[in-house]
Amino acid sequence: MDTLRWNDGVLYLLDQRRLPFEEIYLTCTTWRDVEYAISVLAVRGAPAIGVAAAYAVILASESLVSIRNRKFYDDEMGRITKLLDQSRPTAVNLHWALMKMMQEVHRYADMDIPDLTKHLEMVAMAIHDADKTSNELMGTYGADALAKGKKALTILTHCNAGALATTGIGTALGVIRVLHKRGLVKRVYVDETRPLLQGSRLTATELFHSSIPVTVITDNMAAWTMKTCHVDAVIVGADRIAANGDTANKIGTFGVALAAAALDIPFYVAAPVSTFDLTLPNGEAIPIEERDHQEVRTFGTSRTVLPEIPVFNPAFDVTDHQHITAIITERGVLEHPDAQRVASFFEKR
Amino acid sequence: MDTLRWNDGVLYLLDQRRLPFEEIYLTCTTWRDVEYAISVLAVRGAPAIGVAAAYAVILASESLVSIRNRKFYDDEMGRITKLLDQSRPTAVNLHWALMKMMQEVHRYADMDIPDLTKHLEMVAMAIHDADKTSNELMGTYGADALAKGKKALTILTHCNAGALATTGIGTALGVIRVLHKRGLVKRVYVDETRPLLQGSRLTATELFHSSIPVTVITDNMAAWTMKTCHVDAVIVGADRIAANGDTANKIGTFGVALAAAALDIPFYVAAPVSTFDLTLPNGEAIPIEERDHQEVRTFGTSRTVLPEIPVFNPAFDVTDHQHITAIITERGVLEHPDAQRVASFFEKR
Repeated sequence: MDTLRWNDGVLYLLDQRRLPFEEIYLTCTTWRDVEYAISVLAVRGAPAIGVAAAYAVILASESLVSIRNRKFYDDEMGRITKLLDQSRPTAVNLHWALMKMMQEVHRYADMDIPDLTKHLEMVAMAIHDADKTSNELMGTYGADALAKGKKALTILTHCNAGALATTGIGTALGVIRVLHKRGLVKRVYVDETRPLLQGSRLTATELFHSSIPVTVITDNMAAWTMKTCHVDAVIVGADRIAANGDTANKIGTFGVALAAAALDIPFYVAAPVSTFDLTLPNGEAIPIEERDHQEVRTFGTSRTVLPEIPVFNPAFDVTDHQHITAIITERGVLEHPDAQRVASFFEKR
Repeated sequence: MDTLRWNDGVLYLLDQRRLPFEEIYLTCTTWRDVEYAISVLAVRGAPAIGVAAAYAVILASESLVSIRNRKFYDDEMGRITKLLDQSRPTAVNLHWALMKMMQEVHRYADMDIPDLTKHLEMVAMAIHDADKTSNELMGTYGADALAKGKKALTILTHCNAGALATTGIGTALGVIRVLHKRGLVKRVYVDETRPLLQGSRLTATELFHSSIPVTVITDNMAAWTMKTCHVDAVIVGADRIAANGDTANKIGTFGVALAAAALDIPFYVAAPVSTFDLTLPNGEAIPIEERDHQEVRTFGTSRTVLPEIPVFNPAFDVTDHQHITAIITERGVLEHPDAQRVASFFEKR
């Protein structure tokens, strides 16, 4: 079960809205198909949408391959990547991947468009490969950071930062997988993650299929479970990290981090360096996507609230850097992140 | 729309599982009907199940009215109240109401059973009336405690501590209603309260029908909403309060309290004195009901998780007294509860 496959000029995306009860791939032959898939969360997870967007740029370039006027091509590509960039506002990996692709467009300003399209395909495949590799490295670094001698850990995670959120073994779940291989996982508690249930539908399924002991809880059980089931560590993914370490991740992460802080449980973030947005001084500057209110008003086919009653549906929240024990990246572990430590982390590497 | 109605020897219970989309009353003519309604949460909310249980005792007595042997009657009544007491383990108001009723059975050890049954009916109606009155008093005391001059407040609540959880205006929602009458409510944010959605289905509906501005959020949005929507106060109900002020309430309350503490937002509990269990020194001794796992596995008719994957379903959690700004009762407000202050509160009143 791959999150996405690029095959012969077509991007196949596992439709994660249907999981775990149906396994269906969307066939994307135009960049619009990918834009739509990202916006409805058929593909989701910051690293995975970055890779999907890189492939969407190839599809865009292919659709313009018969154009002779390079300036017109460049303008069109600029316009399309801007639209793709807007398909989801919070995860910066999307923006990062699109910028990487457009850098290549600008770098080869004289190349003819069919050759440029072939080059872009190689770049997208490199972004894809790098995502897989970064997961493996985060897994190793993270497992080293979390392991406390030979004690098997009880871990809590929120949303899905797994293979389905990436194109490899996952970020937070990659760390859990490596710990499990070392015999160091006792049990993983997974928040169901309303409104779209990425925890119960995706994370629980991934862990179960990897034979890692897993228990699903509703989101409001997290604090009580941490306290009474003796959770040793919390680990989550990230959608954007500001220059001081403030971290945007799926709504609910902030509450889990506050509970972890109150209960003296270490709280880890696992994310590739492409998740850092050093142009933003702190988390207040991170744009928070507010999604369709129907997500809160419904649950599958069931309604949850009278249609006249207002709801609020922020898709992300921001956890202050003070509440983060360490950020685990493919370049190593950044402990007790703050503005200075983030700056020196990026200077060194 | 009444939570319950006693009419001509029949208890009518509003089936809260069907709300807000259907308004159906269950007709209870035996104590077993009431026991079932309590166990499946057709009637819920600590004060309301206390009143329902008191009426169930009359139904039990009526079913034994032709018995001549008073000892057999007393034994049967003891057995039945024990079974009723077990229908839900956490809310102590259930136990309190049953004990009140059985005290009357023992007080009139020589009365014949038809007369005793009539007397029990009067006692149950007095418990019912006292519940309504206590709501009014809590509303006034609580509104005085929460009001900060003329500033209209943004309030967050969890689960349902409203008219539907009681037989009056509600405990936490009673306070909100009185504040609203004084023009002091800006908006109420309501956690949907998984797994059974008492927040989105019941609390939001109650507030909306009372023209109080309300916004529904999923449980994992509580901390972020408190921070970014400038919540001034949190107020919830309670199912059992230990002698040191530790408070059991619907699962998720503990996480909300930790977030409120971290964000320096006052956290209030509104509950009648019958919610106190002074036999328990602290919250660790409060029994926490674990309910059917299907509640977590499903949402209406939708499945949320593969059937092979374990889930955990504690129905309540315990908030440490340190995180409670004040407990609002019908006998006044108990600020910064701890063992000593709870003891002197009960000595004085």
